[in-house]
Amino acid sequence: MQSERNKILVESIKRLLRRDATSHLRKIVNKTHAADLSVVFRSLSLSNQRKLFAMIKNTQQKGVLFSELDEDILSNLIEGMEIDELVEIMERMPADDVADIIGQLPKEKSDTILEKMKKEGSEEVEGLLRYDDDSAGGIMLPDFIALKEDTTAKEAIESLQKEHLDVEMPFYLYVVDDHGRLVGVSSLRQLVVVHPETPLKQFMTTDVFSVQTGMEQEEVAKIVARYDILAVPVVDSTNKLVGIVTVDDIIDIIREEATKDILKMAGAGEEFIETQSVLKSTRSRLPWLFASCVGGIIAFLIIGRFEGSLSKLAYLAAFIPVIMNMGGNIGTQSSSIVVRGLATGQLNVRDIWSVVFKELAVGFILGLVYGFIIGVVAQFRYDTWALALSVGLSVICSMSVAALLGSMVPMAFARINIDPAVASSPFVTTSVDIISVFFYFEIATTLLGI
Amino acid sequence: MQSERNKILVESIKRLLRRDATSHLRKIVNKTHAADLSVVFRSLSLSNQRKLFAMIKNTQQKGVLFSELDEDILSNLIEGMEIDELVEIMERMPADDVADIIGQLPKEKSDTILEKMKKEGSEEVEGLLRYDDDSAGGIMLPDFIALKEDTTAKEAIESLQKEHLDVEMPFYLYVVDDHGRLVGVSSLRQLVVVHPETPLKQFMTTDVFSVQTGMEQEEVAKIVARYDILAVPVVDSTNKLVGIVTVDDIIDIIREEATKDILKMAGAGEEFIETQSVLKSTRSRLPWLFASCVGGIIAFLIIGRFEGSLSKLAYLAAFIPVIMNMGGNIGTQSSSIVVRGLATGQLNVRDIWSVVFKELAVGFILGLVYGFIIGVVAQFRYDTWALALSVGLSVICSMSVAALLGSMVPMAFARINIDPAVASSPFVTTSVDIISVFFYFEIATTLLGI
Repeated sequence: MQSERNKILVESIKRLLRRDATSHLRKIVNKTHAADLSVVFRSLSLSNQRKLFAMIKNTQQKGVLFSELDEDILSNLIEGMEIDELVEIMERMPADDVADIIGQLPKEKSDTILEKMKKEGSEEVEGLLRYDDDSAGGIMLPDFIALKEDTTAKEAIESLQKEHLDVEMPFYLYVVDDHGRLVGVSSLRQLVVVHPETPLKQFMTTDVFSVQTGMEQEEVAKIVARYDILAVPVVDSTNKLVGIVTVDDIIDIIREEATKDILKMAGAGEEFIETQSVLKSTRSRLPWLFASCVGGIIAFLIIGRFEGSLSKLAYLAAFIPVIMNMGGNIGTQSSSIVVRGLATGQLNVRDIWSVVFKELAVGFILGLVYGFIIGVVAQFRYDTWALALSVGLSVICSMSVAALLGSMVPMAFARINIDPAVASSPFVTTSVDIISVFFYFEIATTLLGI
Repeated sequence: MQSERNKILVESIKRLLRRDATSHLRKIVNKTHAADLSVVFRSLSLSNQRKLFAMIKNTQQKGVLFSELDEDILSNLIEGMEIDELVEIMERMPADDVADIIGQLPKEKSDTILEKMKKEGSEEVEGLLRYDDDSAGGIMLPDFIALKEDTTAKEAIESLQKEHLDVEMPFYLYVVDDHGRLVGVSSLRQLVVVHPETPLKQFMTTDVFSVQTGMEQEEVAKIVARYDILAVPVVDSTNKLVGIVTVDDIIDIIREEATKDILKMAGAGEEFIETQSVLKSTRSRLPWLFASCVGGIIAFLIIGRFEGSLSKLAYLAAFIPVIMNMGGNIGTQSSSIVVRGLATGQLNVRDIWSVVFKELAVGFILGLVYGFIIGVVAQFRYDTWALALSVGLSVICSMSVAALLGSMVPMAFARINIDPAVASSPFVTTSVDIISVFFYFEIATTLLGI
């Protein structure tokens, strides 16, 4: 439904662009939500993107679109724009989004922009640029509402009416001491429910979840998700309140992290690159294919050693794919389950042995099932019990080892603080291939006596 | 850090349980956030879970824990509990969570509970049970604030102070007409900022995003994520406001959907099952392994046809793994990129041809690179140019076909409304294996003239 609506939008905009129906376009562009426009932009040429962008009347609206656009589209769009227009737009954007954009620009350009921006805004942005992109400090908004604990509910509401109009999501009011250190929190809801003269300290919650500026964004997301809060305050090392991370950014982080994990597991880079060029895309996928190429060459050397047996019993080769496959696939299952379980907190590194043991049991049972099926097929086709037994045993070994490695490798990676998603799957399948082929030929040559 | 804290918590609770230090345990249990307790419960035996649960004083707190616990832990815990206690707890829980639990219980038990619950609560729950679990109606909260458009800001605030105390996240106030149809929305923020006598219709936003009860939860999540809103109103077919979906539930859905996608892509079932028994886990992983078993048997039949060539040139077998692997891995990369791109909206089904063409180009270029490398290794080892050429060409074919299928299959699935994540990857790798082996032997026997 959602994508249906967007489809219609994209098509009407394209049609109007072809017809050069400027006044009509202008109407649509200024009525459409920036989030939808950002989807339309993906299907347009750069020159058409520029044309549409110039039609947006409201500078604030331009800023919202900036925040929504894909990184590569935005950087192309910005390239042709005047510095003064950029400054004007960025002054109306939340500081965290500005910092993201500024961080991508060439130093010279970013310096000029920061110089030209109003002092307050540029200081905020520069403050954010000090933190790592993926840390709480890098994603926080420096706009928040902080009040002293003696402030009454009435005064707090008044301050909302006069100041803090730029605060993006004023659902929590933070309470700080004289040094700006976080001591409590009140929701806007509580503020309107209590008697107007009640001071904050009487009804604020003192048990506040907060995160430090250096915490990784993935951890921050876990906390916000776990405790169902709409924003988490960020404090520096002295517990001074310096910003908040809001739930809308958390949603983006959760999706981004899931994407990264999926791509890393498949050995397809870290960032979603479908919108980039063929060459860039090729480059990011090259390395993990190299690992599997090396693994393949090792398997080839192992099989080469059994050339003598193979020329006597050529049909041995026919079982290589099925044995490799069964191992590879169950290995991928195990590693996907473990990687995802670790990411969502449903599995814990300290349970390594119970998880690995369980996977091994699953692998062994499934190995029995499929070893039997494939062994029966082999017996049916070649009528040699030693071959059937070899094939069956090899499937059992391969699937058990695969489940073992598939669960142990990501667990072990996590334990030594390496991201378990990093190509667990290519690493596991490659090792499983080598081990499977080796076992198979060792077992078969022994049992068949060749 | 977060997991460090939980580790300490789990260990101290376990130690105290061993020592039977009841008063100490009672203190910890009643001070710890339910979300953290739910993590602790994962590491405890059922009898210890019961013991801790009984120590929670506050019934409300028990309800929060119910909402947080993993499904299987909760169902074991509930089994031993008195109906009256369950009713008491559930009356203090949000209706959507109660509906989830009730939906899992045997009919007899759920009927008794609904009968015993206070009328208002049980009606809400029964209302929710009418909708599909994964639809907007199934996940919405029936508690929201709806006011008429003539209500003044002051009256609205007063109603917040007197009624609606059970509303979970009162950040938006919805405005409805005489028939309960949604006509506008105001934030709590706007309410305190305007003059107290201003009626809602003068400052409400009339351009409200809403979803229908039947919309899939994944779609709802996309809308909330795209427009950065904290709650989305749910309306029935007559546009009557019937509930809201809040952002904290959206976060859970996004994580859940990402988990499902990862597991489905690996052919490892739909639900995260690591906490379940070995047998359950085995069963959910059996089907897709069966697909790859069948694929392996087909590959085996194909290779069997070339037995004659193989007994002449046994070393042909040595290249089977590397050719299969390179194809399988690039196919997994392509399908992961496409499946994730479709899920996040970065790719669109209507761009099928540009995506497929690009993947094909990437597959071909990577095929050239690795075909050359592997061909050189073959030449170096066996010094037969026809073999080297066969191997190289086969790698190119295999990788190009894999990239093509890997991108086209999920796209095609999505187009005919089949979930693209459903085992795209096992389906793709199995087909790629068969095709690779076939091409390889055809090319090699032709070029080598055997």
